[in-house]
Amino acid sequence: MTPYLLDTWYAAGWSDDFGADMKPLTLLDQPLLFFRDSAGRVRAMSDRCPHRFAPLHMGTLCNDRVQCPYHGLQFDGDGRCVHNPHGDGAIPKAAVLRSYPTEERHSLVWIWMGDPARADSTLIPDFAFLSDPALVTNRGTLRGAGHYELYSDNIMDLGHAEFLHPGLGAPAFTQGPRDIYQRGSTVWSNVASLDSELSPLHAAIKQLEGRRLDWWVDVRWDPPASMELTLYVDEVGGSRETAKWTDRGCHIMTPETADSTLYFWANCRNYRRDDAALTAAIQAGLEAAFENEDKPMIAAQSAMMKGADFWSLKPVLLAGDAGGVRARRVLAKLIADESARNARAADASPPAASPATPATC
Amino acid sequence: MTPYLLDTWYAAGWSDDFGADMKPLTLLDQPLLFFRDSAGRVRAMSDRCPHRFAPLHMGTLCNDRVQCPYHGLQFDGDGRCVHNPHGDGAIPKAAVLRSYPTEERHSLVWIWMGDPARADSTLIPDFAFLSDPALVTNRGTLRGAGHYELYSDNIMDLGHAEFLHPGLGAPAFTQGPRDIYQRGSTVWSNVASLDSELSPLHAAIKQLEGRRLDWWVDVRWDPPASMELTLYVDEVGGSRETAKWTDRGCHIMTPETADSTLYFWANCRNYRRDDAALTAAIQAGLEAAFENEDKPMIAAQSAMMKGADFWSLKPVLLAGDAGGVRARRVLAKLIADESARNARAADASPPAASPATPATC
Amino acid sequence: MTPYLLDTWYAAGWSDDFGADMKPLTLLDQPLLFFRDSAGRVRAMSDRCPHRFAPLHMGTLCNDRVQCPYHGLQFDGDGRCVHNPHGDGAIPKAAVLRSYPTEERHSLVWIWMGDPARADSTLIPDFAFLSDPALVTNRGTLRGAGHYELYSDNIMDLGHAEFLHPGLGAPAFTQGPRDIYQRGSTVWSNVASLDSELSPLHAAIKQLEGRRLDWWVDVRWDPPASMELTLYVDEVGGSRETAKWTDRGCHIMTPETADSTLYFWANCRNYRRDDAALTAAIQAGLEAAFENEDKPMIAAQSAMMKGADFWSLKPVLLAGDAGGVRARRVLAKLIADESARNARAADASPPAASPATPATC
Repeated sequence: MTPYLLDTWYAAGWSDDFGADMKPLTLLDQPLLFFRDSAGRVRAMSDRCPHRFAPLHMGTLCNDRVQCPYHGLQFDGDGRCVHNPHGDGAIPKAAVLRSYPTEERHSLVWIWMGDPARADSTLIPDFAFLSDPALVTNRGTLRGAGHYELYSDNIMDLGHAEFLHPGLGAPAFTQGPRDIYQRGSTVWSNVASLDSELSPLHAAIKQLEGRRLDWWVDVRWDPPASMELTLYVDEVGGSRETAKWTDRGCHIMTPETADSTLYFWANCRNYRRDDAALTAAIQAGLEAAFENEDKPMIAAQSAMMKGADFWSLKPVLLAGDAGGVRARRVLAKLIADESARNARAADASPPAASPATPATC
Repeated sequence: MTPYLLDTWYAAGWSDDFGADMKPLTLLDQPLLFFRDSAGRVRAMSDRCPHRFAPLHMGTLCNDRVQCPYHGLQFDGDGRCVHNPHGDGAIPKAAVLRSYPTEERHSLVWIWMGDPARADSTLIPDFAFLSDPALVTNRGTLRGAGHYELYSDNIMDLGHAEFLHPGLGAPAFTQGPRDIYQRGSTVWSNVASLDSELSPLHAAIKQLEGRRLDWWVDVRWDPPASMELTLYVDEVGGSRETAKWTDRGCHIMTPETADSTLYFWANCRNYRRDDAALTAAIQAGLEAAFENEDKPMIAAQSAMMKGADFWSLKPVLLAGDAGGVRARRVLAKLIADESARNARAADASPPAASPATPATC
Repeated sequence: MTPYLLDTWYAAGWSDDFGADMKPLTLLDQPLLFFRDSAGRVRAMSDRCPHRFAPLHMGTLCNDRVQCPYHGLQFDGDGRCVHNPHGDGAIPKAAVLRSYPTEERHSLVWIWMGDPARADSTLIPDFAFLSDPALVTNRGTLRGAGHYELYSDNIMDLGHAEFLHPGLGAPAFTQGPRDIYQRGSTVWSNVASLDSELSPLHAAIKQLEGRRLDWWVDVRWDPPASMELTLYVDEVGGSRETAKWTDRGCHIMTPETADSTLYFWANCRNYRRDDAALTAAIQAGLEAAFENEDKPMIAAQSAMMKGADFWSLKPVLLAGDAGGVRARRVLAKLIADESARNARAADASPPAASPATPATC
């Protein structure tokens, strides 16, 4: 039983991570091979040759065909073997790589890890702001130790900021009321802080030091671990909808393995847009926060858990955990439902001709 | 079933290892946090926050309170949560760290790993000589690979000295009769060597080269792995009780994990007490013997055992093994008795309200 | 159940790997100790002292006796304990090291890992060419990650050369018909290429660039993984038997563990014998091919398999796999037969006096 939700979209990387070269990535414990074909489409398939299990990314890519480095089988972007240099050149029926649907959307490449027949691109969460020309974007990728839900918990409870990120905390994150609600499988965890000060760092980059303001932070979570985090800031008496200063961010996690995570983050601001020095300072600051603060803390937390299931350790829950726990429960139910559905489908299928007997040669 | 004796005192370190800073230590596979409070008392508790399992030693210590680095819960020296910065600040009942009784005695800090109600400081073995001002002390700490009983076996059979420690061997250690006896759970393994030469190194540091002497080595073992080793040297016809030259040593092992050990050693002499150069030479010599001879040999022995139980490998026993085997049997019986007692106690208790269901938030 | 064939000869190394010093080697997961005794005979025994499991190779070798580094037991070349320095010096019956038959033949040292009573030196495959003074030999040893059958598969299908070894490929290796046959437990996988060009590298070292020739490559496999690979080259219309140019090679693999392999290779040529520069160039070229091409590919293949059994991964088989698959099946049957035979023998034996109770001291 896989511990992952399969019929869903996972971010595989930023668009410009995928060029003409082959890019191997492990996602959900699967060794995968990505490349952008000559039509500009990102293709994803197993990185393991079905002949002798060599990693295909050690081979060559030519004319949209991947050639195995060991014995030279060639595969197209759909994972079909299209050339066998051995013997009479007949292509064995089983010489196929599993391939995966991909979608490129607003500067991110998404991959569907489940049944390709169910891949529905309308299910990709909306991160349109990532390609909004009216915003200035900082972004990055982190690879860290720890289960991906430890990373999404981290965003769903911003109460950690005061302790882990000097200058980013604010009383609203720890003591403020939270508005937690669910629409379908989307969970929202929102905080409002009226007539109050921003965190020192947020005030500084907006040149709002010492000012009292109305501000809101909305976090939208979609399974498996894709979050939008928006900070709206306005004059006292203003509104979220017409806020003068906004930072829209994404925090999207993809499990590499059960104990390591890829984390795609961005911050897109609508203020001081021509200030390149500010853009560079935000980039440096965010990279430092993610690499030097979040990543080692979550790695340490994961090491302390020694591979145990989160709930088996009986965590004491605090007020700030409400959003993260809701998201964990939604995801757990989706995985259980999917497993049950797949088990029923397996029961209903006639037994396939045993593939355990290799073809004789 | 834990493989460790729990209702007993383990050495956690030397007194001066514990200062105002937090000190994390893994003992018996448990991540523990130590600090010396403002009253000078060494406190010991779990290093794992019950909220999100962050390592508390990465946080801060202020006014005898440990603050979690991740979400800011604060705990006092008894492990009680005394501050929750989140929500209304109410402290969840389960927000408690397991804490451990400690005792500081004759320059060592001891920790009781079992039921605190049974912690009895009179059970700490007597190492009063460690703080005897009439003696000059050399001491140190070794951290090495291997089960702690491999380390205690090493001391219980000094017959290894001739082969592992050039200059420290003597025929009495290999061929001499041993006086092995047990009083309660204390095991003695003693050697007497009358009208004979000391080992070359022992003769040299006592300036007794070439002299025939009466000498005795007594090893007292207390469970789980605390040994006193005393060398008494006197003129021929003298006696152990009035020996002119004595070296009293401790060899105390504490399991870090099943495969690694903390080893606290000391040697306290009553001769050439003002000779600082001798003190420095003994320090260098002992450190070299422990680090370069005992430690790699026991690590190699442990690697050869590949995690197997000692008895399952059917060791061939030699004369020198009598003391170590007696100690192993005493300890095995204590562990078995304790496990049986704890199992009976668990059977007799009414089932607790299931703690597996986390508090809702 | 061991996964290895035991009643067979494994190569342990080249003759000159074994000198007067003790040489530890892990073979078939067993820590072994080798030394050449004063009569020039290579002796092999367990490297683990039966007393306290210390690695004997950390001790000393004197007068053909190995002395344990920890407590000084001494063992002779048959593994018998011949000296006990402890107590009254009596030698415990169980103080015996398992020893292994060895044979030195044509510059290789072989070890029999099974029942010594069945060791039959006539079963060592014929590699007489390795010590033929009429040939010039290049040779080496590789230690690599991966199961040893991945290494033998690599030689049994030379179709990989075109893709993995630039300059060593030829159409005959991929498309040519193969002559696969079995005699007893010996498998042959032969290729003939008449009136054709050699691979560029083979043509170059024979100074036959651009020439059309008749050539043959015969691979002889003997279990568990000992291969002779011979390239015969002659003028068009010539014959294998009277070929002018021959390269006889050995490719002999010995499992170190289930996931690592020792690989002994050689190439012995009958041409340009006085050309020392050519000899050096071949040495460098072969070492580079093994270390930089075969070894990382097989390690990568092994990593992709994540410890799974080869057949459980349902490999797609190609024309070139016929020889390797035949060899795998022969070996699997030999192992199954041996296991069954040993199980029957165990059933038929009266129970031995339990060795689980250690001797008291």
